[in-house]
Amino acid sequence: MIIVLKPGTSIETTKELIATIEAKGLKPVMLEGTQRNVIAVIGDERALQSINFESHPDIEKATPVLTPYKLVSREIYPANTVIDVGGVAVGGNNFVVIAGPCSVESYAQMTETAAAVREAGARLLRGGVFKPRSSPYAFQGLGVDGLGILSQVSREQSMPAFTEVMEVKDLDMVEEQGAAFQIGARNMKNTRLLTAVGQRKTPVLLKRGMAATIDDLLLAAEYILCEGNPNVILCERGISTFETSTRNTLDLNAIPVLKEKTHLPVIVDPSHGIGVRRWVTPMALAAAAAGADGIMVEVHNSPKDALSDGHQSLHPDEFVALMKALRPVVAAVGRELV
Amino acid sequence: MIIVLKPGTSIETTKELIATIEAKGLKPVMLEGTQRNVIAVIGDERALQSINFESHPDIEKATPVLTPYKLVSREIYPANTVIDVGGVAVGGNNFVVIAGPCSVESYAQMTETAAAVREAGARLLRGGVFKPRSSPYAFQGLGVDGLGILSQVSREQSMPAFTEVMEVKDLDMVEEQGAAFQIGARNMKNTRLLTAVGQRKTPVLLKRGMAATIDDLLLAAEYILCEGNPNVILCERGISTFETSTRNTLDLNAIPVLKEKTHLPVIVDPSHGIGVRRWVTPMALAAAAAGADGIMVEVHNSPKDALSDGHQSLHPDEFVALMKALRPVVAAVGRELV
Amino acid sequence: MIIVLKPGTSIETTKELIATIEAKGLKPVMLEGTQRNVIAVIGDERALQSINFESHPDIEKATPVLTPYKLVSREIYPANTVIDVGGVAVGGNNFVVIAGPCSVESYAQMTETAAAVREAGARLLRGGVFKPRSSPYAFQGLGVDGLGILSQVSREQSMPAFTEVMEVKDLDMVEEQGAAFQIGARNMKNTRLLTAVGQRKTPVLLKRGMAATIDDLLLAAEYILCEGNPNVILCERGISTFETSTRNTLDLNAIPVLKEKTHLPVIVDPSHGIGVRRWVTPMALAAAAAGADGIMVEVHNSPKDALSDGHQSLHPDEFVALMKALRPVVAAVGRELV
Amino acid sequence: MIIVLKPGTSIETTKELIATIEAKGLKPVMLEGTQRNVIAVIGDERALQSINFESHPDIEKATPVLTPYKLVSREIYPANTVIDVGGVAVGGNNFVVIAGPCSVESYAQMTETAAAVREAGARLLRGGVFKPRSSPYAFQGLGVDGLGILSQVSREQSMPAFTEVMEVKDLDMVEEQGAAFQIGARNMKNTRLLTAVGQRKTPVLLKRGMAATIDDLLLAAEYILCEGNPNVILCERGISTFETSTRNTLDLNAIPVLKEKTHLPVIVDPSHGIGVRRWVTPMALAAAAAGADGIMVEVHNSPKDALSDGHQSLHPDEFVALMKALRPVVAAVGRELV
Repeated sequence: MIIVLKPGTSIETTKELIATIEAKGLKPVMLEGTQRNVIAVIGDERALQSINFESHPDIEKATPVLTPYKLVSREIYPANTVIDVGGVAVGGNNFVVIAGPCSVESYAQMTETAAAVREAGARLLRGGVFKPRSSPYAFQGLGVDGLGILSQVSREQSMPAFTEVMEVKDLDMVEEQGAAFQIGARNMKNTRLLTAVGQRKTPVLLKRGMAATIDDLLLAAEYILCEGNPNVILCERGISTFETSTRNTLDLNAIPVLKEKTHLPVIVDPSHGIGVRRWVTPMALAAAAAGADGIMVEVHNSPKDALSDGHQSLHPDEFVALMKALRPVVAAVGRELV
Repeated sequence: MIIVLKPGTSIETTKELIATIEAKGLKPVMLEGTQRNVIAVIGDERALQSINFESHPDIEKATPVLTPYKLVSREIYPANTVIDVGGVAVGGNNFVVIAGPCSVESYAQMTETAAAVREAGARLLRGGVFKPRSSPYAFQGLGVDGLGILSQVSREQSMPAFTEVMEVKDLDMVEEQGAAFQIGARNMKNTRLLTAVGQRKTPVLLKRGMAATIDDLLLAAEYILCEGNPNVILCERGISTFETSTRNTLDLNAIPVLKEKTHLPVIVDPSHGIGVRRWVTPMALAAAAAGADGIMVEVHNSPKDALSDGHQSLHPDEFVALMKALRPVVAAVGRELV
Repeated sequence: MIIVLKPGTSIETTKELIATIEAKGLKPVMLEGTQRNVIAVIGDERALQSINFESHPDIEKATPVLTPYKLVSREIYPANTVIDVGGVAVGGNNFVVIAGPCSVESYAQMTETAAAVREAGARLLRGGVFKPRSSPYAFQGLGVDGLGILSQVSREQSMPAFTEVMEVKDLDMVEEQGAAFQIGARNMKNTRLLTAVGQRKTPVLLKRGMAATIDDLLLAAEYILCEGNPNVILCERGISTFETSTRNTLDLNAIPVLKEKTHLPVIVDPSHGIGVRRWVTPMALAAAAAGADGIMVEVHNSPKDALSDGHQSLHPDEFVALMKALRPVVAAVGRELV
Repeated sequence: MIIVLKPGTSIETTKELIATIEAKGLKPVMLEGTQRNVIAVIGDERALQSINFESHPDIEKATPVLTPYKLVSREIYPANTVIDVGGVAVGGNNFVVIAGPCSVESYAQMTETAAAVREAGARLLRGGVFKPRSSPYAFQGLGVDGLGILSQVSREQSMPAFTEVMEVKDLDMVEEQGAAFQIGARNMKNTRLLTAVGQRKTPVLLKRGMAATIDDLLLAAEYILCEGNPNVILCERGISTFETSTRNTLDLNAIPVLKEKTHLPVIVDPSHGIGVRRWVTPMALAAAAAGADGIMVEVHNSPKDALSDGHQSLHPDEFVALMKALRPVVAAVGRELV
């Protein structure tokens, strides 16, 4: 950590700071500058996280040298983590396709959609039963009934499934039905939920929040890993920017950055990211080319009748076309479609 | 609602759409343009919220004429709502000051801070016991023990208190201790929590999320009101932008916009908004001048020892100076400091 | 255009508005709603651009149905425009690679860099001689001397070159030296410069501004086309967002949106977009996969000695690796590397 | 400057870096950490601006300790700069009101508007004659004819005037007519224009760009001061964010930050900032309360007939009301309305 002192900081204050650092077992080095004095701290500065140097009236800024997260860092675990989701390996050299509707609406809808995407090459299923919606007057999901449908279709179609959890009390229900957890963008900073999924072993697909930096996402994952669950898949799904032509701004820059900083698999959700059906495929291909470990795509057997997100859901035929376009791109970057 | 059809939409499709609208009890009017046809819908278009016109392949865009929220709208209730928080009236012509530390740390810290801010003119107390932090290695709050301290100090100092709730299971505990609810920025879209506080009568201070538009905030409040709890206080606390000199960008533009759109009280948290101690007071004054119904300010009896947010917490002396500067501004805009 | 009137607008005002619309040769249709009245305007509403409906005190909002631009629109010219840049065809089914240093620094630097990128597959050269820098103390470019070097190397290496113009008076000099124009992000809304390049026939590479929406970029291009110069190439190069891990947020979402809205070629500058050398290649591949018509990449024969943007410039060896990775991706999306 | 080396950087490379720093007359201090080595640089690191440490392959990051600007910094000139604009003192303890229409449209419009705002308390006039517009089909200003009108009305009404300049060639014309310069948000990074106004003595009102950080604005001002013109007034006018209820997000946070960092006067343009007429007054009051040195407000004698920005222009009566509301707020913060 590099601590820049304000001009005119007294010797007493400086000595106090130095003592504080030494008390944590680290080594402070005093650098007297022409306009500012600086204290450089040698040792693992994460020991200083409980001290708020920035709240000190004589400190201008305190810049960490190391990242604030540890367990998710590739410096700690250099190799790619591969996560087993019901027998499907996510990460490594694989490229995985997760597909399905935004919301579980009926057994027929799920079966028709799942069969179609399975046939086209998707290996994992998605389907929400607990839906966080902007408006209280919009469809909020089928709840526990939907969970039963999802589970049945998942088994019948041999497609392990992800479904969003919104609260700690949802976890048991979802695990009982054999589904994996998804934590949505709105709950990425819900630390209770992060801690709770951390205490289980079920895989977690963690979506980036709309105002979350890449470091925020990694810290959210750190919440899960530090509780003991290593099975975290990160998901870029678009951030909030001034651009209004697209629903969000899918931030593909996050792919190479995340792949460098962490050993966890990184997938991309182009459906929410760009939010308009006819632009989903180009963003899916771009995600693969940028080095993502997979994509999550919204597909509905009849998008115009979808109870949510129909404007960004692909028709099964469009999904077939997406998969056809995707295969050569995945091959071009030396990955294997699982 | 104004539905713009794509060029070349067939007569059959158009007829189908018209029938769908009529089936909801609304009146469609067909407008044949030179380049686009448009269907204008007459009647309360919120009846159409369950239909995803935007997911229709032949619809270019569907623009609502009315707001998506109802109960929070000033069109429905033109008069200002005044909310009773433990005997302190928030809203109307009053200007209220809520102050206290980011986190409850000890009985001594709370007592010293509360007494100081009470003396200086604050009427309501704040203090977090359940802390959502970016890093799992940072201080997470004293939990239930902190709640006991907050409650005791609140009674002893005659200052009704707000404390953040993070999960449905926190609500009973907080109500038993007599505190009011605060929903933080990270949980603004936690619809479970919104619905649960909506089913109680305890006042709720609802903070705007870092990526939430003004309409998103109003919809979050609508979640609470539509369950039956009218006691919602909105709080602007800064949004995420590209500017890095300040912690967030406190969006004071939201004050006049919210005061026009809704009858609910609107307060401002300049401490989180700008995030640097010495800039808090100017933003507090600006909030008052912009028409806010109050402010929420972080004050700590010894900011440099604070376990969280010390860099933005005022020392009691600084809070006294803030209050001294605030009084004439509040008077200048014709408001009364409660 | 859909004009929503405020509740309580008088009949006289409404009649006046209707008369104003009719005076422009368009047909107003009055729709009486339950809560709001609406005037729908039939005909080419762009005739109404000189009227500021939104400034009218009785109008709540005025939403256009058509786009504000015409000549750049794919609705007007459905086929892809192909632009001849010194014999190299940009657009259509081609995928073009523009490469070179941020700044022209010397004949040796330019020759070495140009020869290397030419050999690796780049067809067009870039090199700035007039440099807009954030700090007045940073290197501002070699100016007219640099232009001579660029021109000579361009001829010797048979690589037509782009160079940034910052002012109308630069245009003659640049044309005399045979280079094509680049308008940088900082000047995208410099309407004088847009108009001036519009009055010539030299190709213009127009970069998106850091706060420019996709529609803003199209309107800037419209400035050029409406003066008579059809040779405009659009360039996405990153927008300003809250994310700080990357220099800007390269917005690849803009690719499918622009390719749908306009017939002009669209290229991507991953170097400025992500701003860190080791992340440039993944973004270049993603740009190709998303449907871009080419990329513009910063390459320097010795990045650590570069006078500007060295942190994002590729070494020639890294550029060779980029091209090797790019070829199969370009082929995978059915494009041809020119 | 604090230079963090990548793990594994060789001793040779480290020595080379140390030699480079010494060659610039600064003192490098080597700090060997447990996970990273760091070189701290002692002395005025601005001497290192020509070296791109960040482009070095072995450097992880290079963080400056000092600000990149000098002449605009309050550390260099601690006292507030007061600027004489045609006899009106801007800065210091004064609070100045600049008012007038977006565009000069006619002698009658200017006279009527100027007389009204002068009567109500404005001391300086604004009026654009060269208008940068998003669309080429929108009104582009009266040009040189407008300049004549502005100059005449400015003299007749004894109100020194500001008008926007877009190109170096505009400067002589504007100076001949006795007006002060305004550089608009779109041209804030137009370094040619900045340098050219820096070589004159006419006051410059410099608006913050829509994607410009506070440091970017200060660097733009540094361009002007370092050429010799000290008469720069900074103007906050709104930045681009995801919020769409307001035209821009007026960033009042910038006021206390700028007032701390620089000695230059800082004014606020609430009209462009929030962009909706009925929300201008609250933001004007908030600007005064936040510590601004003045405001610039759009007023038009008949906003509904305005050729530009009518939706955000105040009617003279509304401006009278604004001034009436403003006086007590200005007094409350201890400032004097000039």
